[in-house]
Amino acid sequence: MEKIRRTKVSDLLKSETFGTIVNARGWVRSRRGSKKVNFVALNDGSTINNLQIVVDVESFDEEIIKKITTGSCISVNGELVASQGKGQSAELQAKDIVILGEADNTYPLQKKGHTMEFLREIAHLRPRTNTFGAVFRIRHNMAMAVHDFFHKKGFYYFNAPLITSSDCEGAGEMFQVTTMNLYDLKKNEDGTINYDYDFFGKQAALTVSGQLEAELAAMSMGACYTFGPTFRAENSNTPRHLAEFWMIEPEMAFVEIDENMDLAEEFVKHCLKWALDNCMEDISFLNKMFDKELIERIHFVLEHDFKRLTYTEGVKILEEAVAKGHKFEYPVFWGADLASEHERYLVEDHFKRPVILTDYPKEIKSFYMKQNDDDKTVRAMDILFPKIGEIIGGSQREENLEKLEKRAKEMEVPTKDIWWYLDTRRYGTAPHSGFGLGFERLLLFVTGMTNIRDVIPFPRTPNNCEF
Amino acid sequence: MEKIRRTKVSDLLKSETFGTIVNARGWVRSRRGSKKVNFVALNDGSTINNLQIVVDVESFDEEIIKKITTGSCISVNGELVASQGKGQSAELQAKDIVILGEADNTYPLQKKGHTMEFLREIAHLRPRTNTFGAVFRIRHNMAMAVHDFFHKKGFYYFNAPLITSSDCEGAGEMFQVTTMNLYDLKKNEDGTINYDYDFFGKQAALTVSGQLEAELAAMSMGACYTFGPTFRAENSNTPRHLAEFWMIEPEMAFVEIDENMDLAEEFVKHCLKWALDNCMEDISFLNKMFDKELIERIHFVLEHDFKRLTYTEGVKILEEAVAKGHKFEYPVFWGADLASEHERYLVEDHFKRPVILTDYPKEIKSFYMKQNDDDKTVRAMDILFPKIGEIIGGSQREENLEKLEKRAKEMEVPTKDIWWYLDTRRYGTAPHSGFGLGFERLLLFVTGMTNIRDVIPFPRTPNNCEF
Repeated sequence: MEKIRRTKVSDLLKSETFGTIVNARGWVRSRRGSKKVNFVALNDGSTINNLQIVVDVESFDEEIIKKITTGSCISVNGELVASQGKGQSAELQAKDIVILGEADNTYPLQKKGHTMEFLREIAHLRPRTNTFGAVFRIRHNMAMAVHDFFHKKGFYYFNAPLITSSDCEGAGEMFQVTTMNLYDLKKNEDGTINYDYDFFGKQAALTVSGQLEAELAAMSMGACYTFGPTFRAENSNTPRHLAEFWMIEPEMAFVEIDENMDLAEEFVKHCLKWALDNCMEDISFLNKMFDKELIERIHFVLEHDFKRLTYTEGVKILEEAVAKGHKFEYPVFWGADLASEHERYLVEDHFKRPVILTDYPKEIKSFYMKQNDDDKTVRAMDILFPKIGEIIGGSQREENLEKLEKRAKEMEVPTKDIWWYLDTRRYGTAPHSGFGLGFERLLLFVTGMTNIRDVIPFPRTPNNCEF
Repeated sequence: MEKIRRTKVSDLLKSETFGTIVNARGWVRSRRGSKKVNFVALNDGSTINNLQIVVDVESFDEEIIKKITTGSCISVNGELVASQGKGQSAELQAKDIVILGEADNTYPLQKKGHTMEFLREIAHLRPRTNTFGAVFRIRHNMAMAVHDFFHKKGFYYFNAPLITSSDCEGAGEMFQVTTMNLYDLKKNEDGTINYDYDFFGKQAALTVSGQLEAELAAMSMGACYTFGPTFRAENSNTPRHLAEFWMIEPEMAFVEIDENMDLAEEFVKHCLKWALDNCMEDISFLNKMFDKELIERIHFVLEHDFKRLTYTEGVKILEEAVAKGHKFEYPVFWGADLASEHERYLVEDHFKRPVILTDYPKEIKSFYMKQNDDDKTVRAMDILFPKIGEIIGGSQREENLEKLEKRAKEMEVPTKDIWWYLDTRRYGTAPHSGFGLGFERLLLFVTGMTNIRDVIPFPRTPNNCEF
């Protein structure tokens, strides 16, 4: 076969240089047609759209034609011609075909209509489907939107460590990290494990958040953000939980709660606008196949100022709703951690726009949040979205060393493990704020997927660590 | 104090709106001067340069002046005036000063000239120094250069899992990840640990490479790259090893070794050019303070085509050098894994430009590399740089299922754990290639730092997991 430089399917479909000879390579989605003419749908991952290859059957060796099966990989030289089919601009009139890789009838993606559960079992192949090609192209684009936003605003990308010897939240079940031989654990005289023999000389675990380290960066470089994996060893088999997920955690010196809210709102809108600007073909597909209100919902967020009110005001509205007969599964009262149903009521039914709740009861928030003068609430802010509820959680941080230490003690956070964190308040403290966004939570919103396992390439959940 | 919106120091220094009142906030690097006038060097992390604050001592409360100590954090309203000092454009004539956070004389960064070892012990504060501010701003910019390069080329950012049940290299010491109670390990009848009781229902570990998963992505989406943390539990206390480091691993379908080399060369040059275009102030500082040849070395790489030759040719050159009397610490012979001194000899002494060595002996390379017809070598490519030796390692991948399985068996790679990887060759295989770049290795080259612990915020090494 003549060596012609490959052109991506996405570029060929946009091309109008009809009559030229080009080379396309990709995986066969389907082959159909008559004894005389075959139509091959070819996809190379560059777009959700397939390139139609028109094959004049009689011009090719029978053996070649037979091997053009679903899942096989082929290289085609052919003439780019204007498509006769509706909705397509260009197609390829095949001149020469080479089978790069065959796929026999054991190929698991033979036909369409597999369940999402089955596709999770073949997570190594599911990016070859329309759905997961779309989801992972969107995932890529959302990551680019994140970096673009913060870079242009002068934030520094800061890599918090994954292996840590401190637990940020003072709670959260963690994965232990060890190189010790579990068959021969060395013990101290009192029977405890002697971690002198472990890699780090002390007990280590996977981080649940990079925020504390991000605060260190903010208190020296001004503004920074993390974007990396974090871990929770919760035994939660739900469509909303992953043991390994990606977090985005910006942190800014000299920023108080109002500016923090401004930034968070601007940030999430930037990401959604990026999705509409760069992923419309993929989003349209998902809108059609999975969630008929997906595009509408993205616009809904983009087109409204987020309503800001306090937790206390929010609870009052919910209590009034209950009084008027609205039924919630979980009880509503001041001090309660709001459930997704409550958050969605505020957003979807009451305000009909995204909501930012502030000033939560200190008992249900972390020790590092700035305490209000009422001694009851902290300067937290949660952004609530339609369909998914909380998408961003953040706060102004407590910059006063004494107050921070006192609150840490009350909440039984082991302060000796975070002496370095307390140093930021000891030396040149300043008001500062930040927030966290679960990347997969954002992706659920942008893709319309309903299970968080379907927006990350290889989900880690209880009893599931394949690939 | 009047509330004026803060302007970053980097913007103030570039500003020429002299006579306007502005607000600056940051950390005091030093205060000097007479009883009448004090000069405060203020830094907020936005640039390596300090803003000079001119303080008319008599106009301020004595208590305020006393608290303007090294490490304290202040907010200053003042008039922007043209600087009288050389090399500076703007300075601030203070009108009003608020102490945001004090720093007493226990602040560890009192004066300059700390050792790098000491600064590692206070890694939570070292970004407040000129050196580490520069290093971490460069780190940020190199990350942006990576994403910019691949995004514009149509690669998808792909997140390989961190927790894995397979070992990519078939070797490499790994960190075990577990939620089991080490005091009460459940055993099987044969005395082995019963991993049914562990979180994932099987033994799990931290990944040493995302390459295998990246190949899955390439064989469905065309071209992708990972950029995330990877882990090695090697007990190596050297300036070149970290237990936790960041890797960039692009992988491309339909790409063979030559195009792979083209891309790798273009990629690394893109990053270096980005550094010169965006980080010149920081690089100039590091050039002056640490490595007088830093800028020259970056230009050296940018201005030369990389010399491409085979490993066999390279070894011949090294053997000739030995014959002529050149002394190496380690022996040179065909089949040997080249040491850094050999790589540097080829780059710095022989060719006087960066080198790409190809076609390495199969015994010293991984099982997944494409086997050459000589049955002795594989289609590997290593890029060698001045000063640091190997910076990139890559290869064309073996796309033939039988050959891949045979080689895996020979190298004792447990193929049952990577059934999913072999599926890419079983269903629609195609030629494909990729490479890996250790992000911190690149940073060593761009910053001139000599210890890898100084280019990552919180280094993880044996017995070191603080912060």
